[in-house]
Amino acid sequence: MGGVVALEETRDPFEGLQPLLQIVADDMRAVNRLILDKAVSDVELIPTLAHHLIDSGGKRLRPMLTIAGAKACGYSGSGHIGLAAAVEFMHTATLLHDDVVDDSDFRRGKKSARMIWGNQASVLVGDFLLGQAFRMMVEVGSLPALKILSDAAAVIAEGEVMQLAAAKDTATTEDEYLAIIAAKTAALFSAACEVGAAITHRPADEQAAMRCYGRNLGIAFQLVDDALDYAGESTRLGKSTGDDFREGKITLPVILCFRRGSEQERSFWKRTLSEGKVEADDFDYAVRLMKRHRAIEATLDRARHFGSIARDALADFPPGPATRALNEVVGFCISRAN
Amino acid sequence: MGGVVALEETRDPFEGLQPLLQIVADDMRAVNRLILDKAVSDVELIPTLAHHLIDSGGKRLRPMLTIAGAKACGYSGSGHIGLAAAVEFMHTATLLHDDVVDDSDFRRGKKSARMIWGNQASVLVGDFLLGQAFRMMVEVGSLPALKILSDAAAVIAEGEVMQLAAAKDTATTEDEYLAIIAAKTAALFSAACEVGAAITHRPADEQAAMRCYGRNLGIAFQLVDDALDYAGESTRLGKSTGDDFREGKITLPVILCFRRGSEQERSFWKRTLSEGKVEADDFDYAVRLMKRHRAIEATLDRARHFGSIARDALADFPPGPATRALNEVVGFCISRAN
Repeated sequence: MGGVVALEETRDPFEGLQPLLQIVADDMRAVNRLILDKAVSDVELIPTLAHHLIDSGGKRLRPMLTIAGAKACGYSGSGHIGLAAAVEFMHTATLLHDDVVDDSDFRRGKKSARMIWGNQASVLVGDFLLGQAFRMMVEVGSLPALKILSDAAAVIAEGEVMQLAAAKDTATTEDEYLAIIAAKTAALFSAACEVGAAITHRPADEQAAMRCYGRNLGIAFQLVDDALDYAGESTRLGKSTGDDFREGKITLPVILCFRRGSEQERSFWKRTLSEGKVEADDFDYAVRLMKRHRAIEATLDRARHFGSIARDALADFPPGPATRALNEVVGFCISRAN
Repeated sequence: MGGVVALEETRDPFEGLQPLLQIVADDMRAVNRLILDKAVSDVELIPTLAHHLIDSGGKRLRPMLTIAGAKACGYSGSGHIGLAAAVEFMHTATLLHDDVVDDSDFRRGKKSARMIWGNQASVLVGDFLLGQAFRMMVEVGSLPALKILSDAAAVIAEGEVMQLAAAKDTATTEDEYLAIIAAKTAALFSAACEVGAAITHRPADEQAAMRCYGRNLGIAFQLVDDALDYAGESTRLGKSTGDDFREGKITLPVILCFRRGSEQERSFWKRTLSEGKVEADDFDYAVRLMKRHRAIEATLDRARHFGSIARDALADFPPGPATRALNEVVGFCISRAN
């Protein structure tokens, strides 16, 4: 157990992404074209700001899940393209609003949009992208898919408000935290996967299985993301460490470390996260505390638990490249902690 | 021509609202119940903040237009209730985000939500209400109505970004300004009216007529709103004067006053609106300039022009209480400048 977050050390974490990348490649070209199309506006600031995020090298994991989910259900139409692009727009809108809410200065290793164009433009362009997302869904014309994605839109916002209400509160319980990430992160993963089954008119239990897969994958993904923030080094995925710490975010590693810590250590977390009084060496000390209490390993153990649920949810789908790709993505989401 | 904004002086401006209030009364009770229902969430901050706006005595003009529009088209179902509530939620979400974008301290005579709960909560609860709006539309299940309202959502945000880009620019032309308010205000009026025809499955030309009515009514409404800000006294409608001036907003009265003014007057507008350097007596001087150049009368003349277009758009609809109510609303929107 060398590094804090070493896991399945012998494999390249990106290996798990390869089967997915392969089966969605053609469709994702269409999705990416549509994303560029729908980021267009006569109001110059809109495409400028939207492209700042669109071009910044996100993995587009969520739209890929929509494509793969549809394929795993045997979908043969073209509606999954529009829904996948809509899912990515919903995600991008959320990122724009998140950066405003979190006062974030950076996103994906670049200055955040709000730092360049201001909070006002970020709020409004986020609204525009959300509007465009719904337009795309309407164009696809599936009311069940619209229901799934509009439910998700409300639940995501609910999760963000929950997180805001719990902000800087080191007494947040693990259950409360799971409820937050189930809403703010997993709801979109879940919806992204479920719409694939919904547009294929698969039976309700298959749709529920796809929803279960996406939800648990999303929780695992967020927990690994939380762990990466304390991994002690920047990763290949462009996530820089310490962002959550500097923003005073209460995440599972913190919750565990706080509960397992001494009174003196708890004072440290309260000072840095609740009161926002962060000094130069505090992040290094935070990482040392994480190691002392094995908080990162425990967080990743939790992530593996949800990953297993996601994998088991796939049992109902016929074996084949799409189902295998979805299965492998679980490994990617967890092993990217390397 | 005594007061700056005296118009149709002999009538109570609210008289024009009476026929509308009468024909929508029953349905609006159902709409108001639905609004309360859908503002519920386990996340306490959401209903608290949402109710701050919902209970603050907005006129609910937009949902009333949806109800009346449906009635004018002979609609006999119940889908107009959900769409009307969705329209009001879209409007409320916009208000929450607007206050953040404009740094507004007050709204409808009360402290703005962002002043009490912060910008972050206002952004996120706005997102939640928008999500709930789409959920309600999906429940109604009309794809044409969904298309109209999702188009509006994107266009409204586009208009807001346009306004942001033109902010504090005294060189904004009247055409540019009309494009901004056509998007940020009139698009929702238009959609609110058009969905009434859409769910009634009326022919395309009737739907277009309803869209035209709503769009022009919305432009007239916004122009009167702009005029009221310089009307020199608080009005019965809870709008307090000088807000736009203090926020440095470029509105039609300013555009006209600037163009009609001397070099010295133009310097005044640039100092106060573009540079935000406002001194104690500046607003009174601004009002005097408005009088000198008859900028309020001219703005209201423009409003009357759009009001006439709205009235003429109603020609296609059978005479009856709903059509008459829509016709009278035009008078209300313009004469509320009293």
